[in-house]
Amino acid sequence: MVKISPSAALVIIDVQKGFDEPFWGKRNNPNAEKVMEDVLRRFRANGRKIIHVRHDSLNPSSILKAGKPGFEFKNEVRPLEHETIITKHVNSAFIGTKLESILREIGEPEVYVMGLTTDHCVSVTARMSGNLGFRTFVIRDACAAHTRFLDGKKIDADTVHNVNLASIEGDFAQIPWSEELEF
Amino acid sequence: MVKISPSAALVIIDVQKGFDEPFWGKRNNPNAEKVMEDVLRRFRANGRKIIHVRHDSLNPSSILKAGKPGFEFKNEVRPLEHETIITKHVNSAFIGTKLESILREIGEPEVYVMGLTTDHCVSVTARMSGNLGFRTFVIRDACAAHTRFLDGKKIDADTVHNVNLASIEGDFAQIPWSEELEF
Repeated sequence: MVKISPSAALVIIDVQKGFDEPFWGKRNNPNAEKVMEDVLRRFRANGRKIIHVRHDSLNPSSILKAGKPGFEFKNEVRPLEHETIITKHVNSAFIGTKLESILREIGEPEVYVMGLTTDHCVSVTARMSGNLGFRTFVIRDACAAHTRFLDGKKIDADTVHNVNLASIEGDFAQIPWSEELEF
Repeated sequence: MVKISPSAALVIIDVQKGFDEPFWGKRNNPNAEKVMEDVLRRFRANGRKIIHVRHDSLNPSSILKAGKPGFEFKNEVRPLEHETIITKHVNSAFIGTKLESILREIGEPEVYVMGLTTDHCVSVTARMSGNLGFRTFVIRDACAAHTRFLDGKKIDADTVHNVNLASIEGDFAQIPWSEELEF
């Protein structure tokens, strides 16, 4: 079990409607949003800090551009009025945002990361979080990845997800399952 | 071919003797250091900026702790007297160092990254470099990874290396082969 500190923050990365577009390719872990909804409910019920991160693409034609329907948060993780929202323009939630200072204000927070996608915005945010000195956790069943390609050869979404988790585990973060989390 | 800008910088990550220890597990790409040596020779011959990064572990018993033989640069990439050396204490060469300001001083640099290991310090440095707005390249045959494990199951070093390259390519960096580089 992983005992969640009173000063833990839940950082939810890019769980936006635009990720439902077929454009992104085949995804693993179709249940991730349901798991996120449950994790969010538990963090809220236990009074932990919630930070919602969303991606506003610098590309005006992107489905993740502010103002487009795809920019909206998915229903499972819609913010409550008093919760913090951070808008970012690159993959990492720490670059060009106030996330680091928001976390430092908490004192010595633990950072729990979940969202989309495992190998892009979740990975770089978790990697930076760990390297910035925050005790960091990626909730592995509350993330998902898409198929990628290398030299035209397909790498299936489960492999992308799992290898990226293995590369993060240890130096950067711990990678608990949601059911291991305990308040 | 990839035409290297006059304002390109070569950032060499953690090519230190301590990585020869069997402790790290099985590695792919045994030829990486020979490729690095050749890339470094070409960047030097063409007068590009060279930045050597080394890891000084915060763990006093680590073989990558300053003062230990494992902390030394490998012979293939030994710095010349006028070249910049950056010492870091976490995976990312941008965290706790002056790397970003050194690169900004160049104006609009291209950042070429090579070194050890593909999925840890190379990946997080390249990801941050791209997200900080630098045009970034990971020289894919001038990097190497080790075997990793997830839930006790082994992931071979080639898979770790290749999946991490696929996850970096695009949003974060381009991933040319050394022979594609042209001055």
